[in-house]
Amino acid sequence: MREVVIVGAAETKFGKSELSYRELAAQAGREAMADAGASPEQIEAFFLGTFSPGTFIRQEHAAPLIASELGLQNVPSTRTENACASGSTAFLNAIFAIAAGAADVVLVVGAEKMTATPTSEVTSILAEAADWEQESKVGLTFPGAYALMARAYFDRYGKTRDILDAVAIKNHRNAMGNPYAQFHKEIGPEDIARSAMVADPLTLYDCSPISDGAAALVLAAADVAGQFRRPGVRVLGFGQASDSLALHHHADLTTLPAARKAAERAYRMAGVSPEDISLAEVHDCFTIAEIIATEDLGFFKPGEGGDAAKAGATARDGRIPVNPSGGLKAKGHPVGATGVSQIAEATFQLRGEAGDRQVDGAELALTHNVGGSGATCVVTILGRPE
Amino acid sequence: MREVVIVGAAETKFGKSELSYRELAAQAGREAMADAGASPEQIEAFFLGTFSPGTFIRQEHAAPLIASELGLQNVPSTRTENACASGSTAFLNAIFAIAAGAADVVLVVGAEKMTATPTSEVTSILAEAADWEQESKVGLTFPGAYALMARAYFDRYGKTRDILDAVAIKNHRNAMGNPYAQFHKEIGPEDIARSAMVADPLTLYDCSPISDGAAALVLAAADVAGQFRRPGVRVLGFGQASDSLALHHHADLTTLPAARKAAERAYRMAGVSPEDISLAEVHDCFTIAEIIATEDLGFFKPGEGGDAAKAGATARDGRIPVNPSGGLKAKGHPVGATGVSQIAEATFQLRGEAGDRQVDGAELALTHNVGGSGATCVVTILGRPE
Repeated sequence: MREVVIVGAAETKFGKSELSYRELAAQAGREAMADAGASPEQIEAFFLGTFSPGTFIRQEHAAPLIASELGLQNVPSTRTENACASGSTAFLNAIFAIAAGAADVVLVVGAEKMTATPTSEVTSILAEAADWEQESKVGLTFPGAYALMARAYFDRYGKTRDILDAVAIKNHRNAMGNPYAQFHKEIGPEDIARSAMVADPLTLYDCSPISDGAAALVLAAADVAGQFRRPGVRVLGFGQASDSLALHHHADLTTLPAARKAAERAYRMAGVSPEDISLAEVHDCFTIAEIIATEDLGFFKPGEGGDAAKAGATARDGRIPVNPSGGLKAKGHPVGATGVSQIAEATFQLRGEAGDRQVDGAELALTHNVGGSGATCVVTILGRPE
Repeated sequence: MREVVIVGAAETKFGKSELSYRELAAQAGREAMADAGASPEQIEAFFLGTFSPGTFIRQEHAAPLIASELGLQNVPSTRTENACASGSTAFLNAIFAIAAGAADVVLVVGAEKMTATPTSEVTSILAEAADWEQESKVGLTFPGAYALMARAYFDRYGKTRDILDAVAIKNHRNAMGNPYAQFHKEIGPEDIARSAMVADPLTLYDCSPISDGAAALVLAAADVAGQFRRPGVRVLGFGQASDSLALHHHADLTTLPAARKAAERAYRMAGVSPEDISLAEVHDCFTIAEIIATEDLGFFKPGEGGDAAKAGATARDGRIPVNPSGGLKAKGHPVGATGVSQIAEATFQLRGEAGDRQVDGAELALTHNVGGSGATCVVTILGRPE
């Protein structure tokens, strides 16, 4: 496959923003082009990852909207939607367009505007990413779905919520070093103990927040990347896999088979193993999800991810730093932006520009982005510029 | 670019259906695989073109939903959304995946379920494909937007509504031969004269209907297509282009610049000219749109498309048959299904299997699929199996 590199990356600050959807998306897009030293005229195609702007802000057909806002005249502009993995599938489709030879330079934006919608409605809209007819309309929301997974994990492996605490505390600490993060607030077990129960055993601090935000990447074929001012972060491997939306079809609630498949494909394509990875940005929409992710990705054996987090193995200076950005938990989770933001964070790390959240000697970064309760999973493996 | 062929195609009947969204999409997908003689195990990736299932039926994340319904285990499954051009962009992204070498055999489905939603809400949901902040929320709906285009066309070229009549009458006549069409009812100028005004000068018979439906295609790399039982219809060229969503940014309301760009790219890639095309399935969401399309595609000079329709040049036995299927006007317009359905119809024509709507000696078919009032345009050029 034609080699693709990332020559530009940008994120907006995540959180409750005064900016509109189109302003956030355009800001990220403009800043990624500025980072690359690319002009709008150099962009040959545009992909937008976004989840549900039709329900959040009554705006479908958002790809040409943002493309024209950015001055990308007449380029093919396409939205992809795969729930919380929308951003990563935009990234993969951009790679396919380049590898197919349909474009040499592509802009990818991920964006979501969620805070203009009342919280109860947000939960209902997010539930449209699950099987509406079989689950959501009878009352199963995502906090409920992940609470079932946490219960299953606790039961299977004899664990308690201290492993969840470890993830929340670490990710809040990591976000202190991330200027784009929604939360800059360290927490301890006592804060979690005092926090509201959302879906037993998940409390408020186990859940990623409702966020506005956008992120963007400029991708180029490696053979034309020399024209840009930044060194190209290499796309070494990727994998995408799917599964049924309905949780009741899943044989095992302590693992996401699609994440395992996606990871297997990405590792094989990149020709590397879990132990080669320098850092991972994983989809911790809930704390239990990070623990399961670190097992699905092969960093830890099944049942050992929680204890590993407790022991500091996933801290920024641990054996395998997980979510040095703060993750969805503390960086924030503007749904369509998340996958693109993970790759932008990996890009900053691999260029050695991650500031206070930099992982020393980062050579290989992995991103893991999940849609729903595992119905879509995308894993990418990125390498330091040569 | 690696050559791609269409080895399977299917459509459901369009119209008000008893079937749910997932049943319609799955039916089309199953029948396209049956047409190709492909098993679910042979499908390596899945693309779903769908517009707004989140608002119509509260179901986002529909790609893995339909994939698992079809028994496509763990394959990458991605939804694309570009308003009424969602189906065609799913088709193009499937081609990119194959050309990139990421998959050899891909299933594409387009689907929409619209009739379960009250008509006034449908119009409002469709208006989310326009610029909500600048147009839709202040009252401009699509019938209004296309009425402005019709007025501009009439004023510029000194025409009257008899040219619109010609399109509606032809497309209703063509649909008589299409078993998948929503309407099997011939109409005359007197029916149109008696019909309700929707947005002056557009009456009910100038507007495509609200529809349920799905269509599907099995695509394969030409180098592996020999394993399937149907001859491969060749994808010879394609083009996609975008424009601003807001109509007030368009300098000229009598043409869609993105359609001209997309057509220019498709003709160049295929190495053919408008006069080489045997038949075209074009995006007649409103009758005026077909007239403008036939000019944007180079079949007629600007201002001459309406008279050409009146003179029979676009009839099934005319110089360039346009919408032998009945078009969106009479075949129906389940938004996300439309682009895929156009390509399915072209496939049937190029295999000589279009029954009562067959165009004699069809060698090259063109499809033209528009999102919004021209913010997304996709043109494809397909060739008879070798």
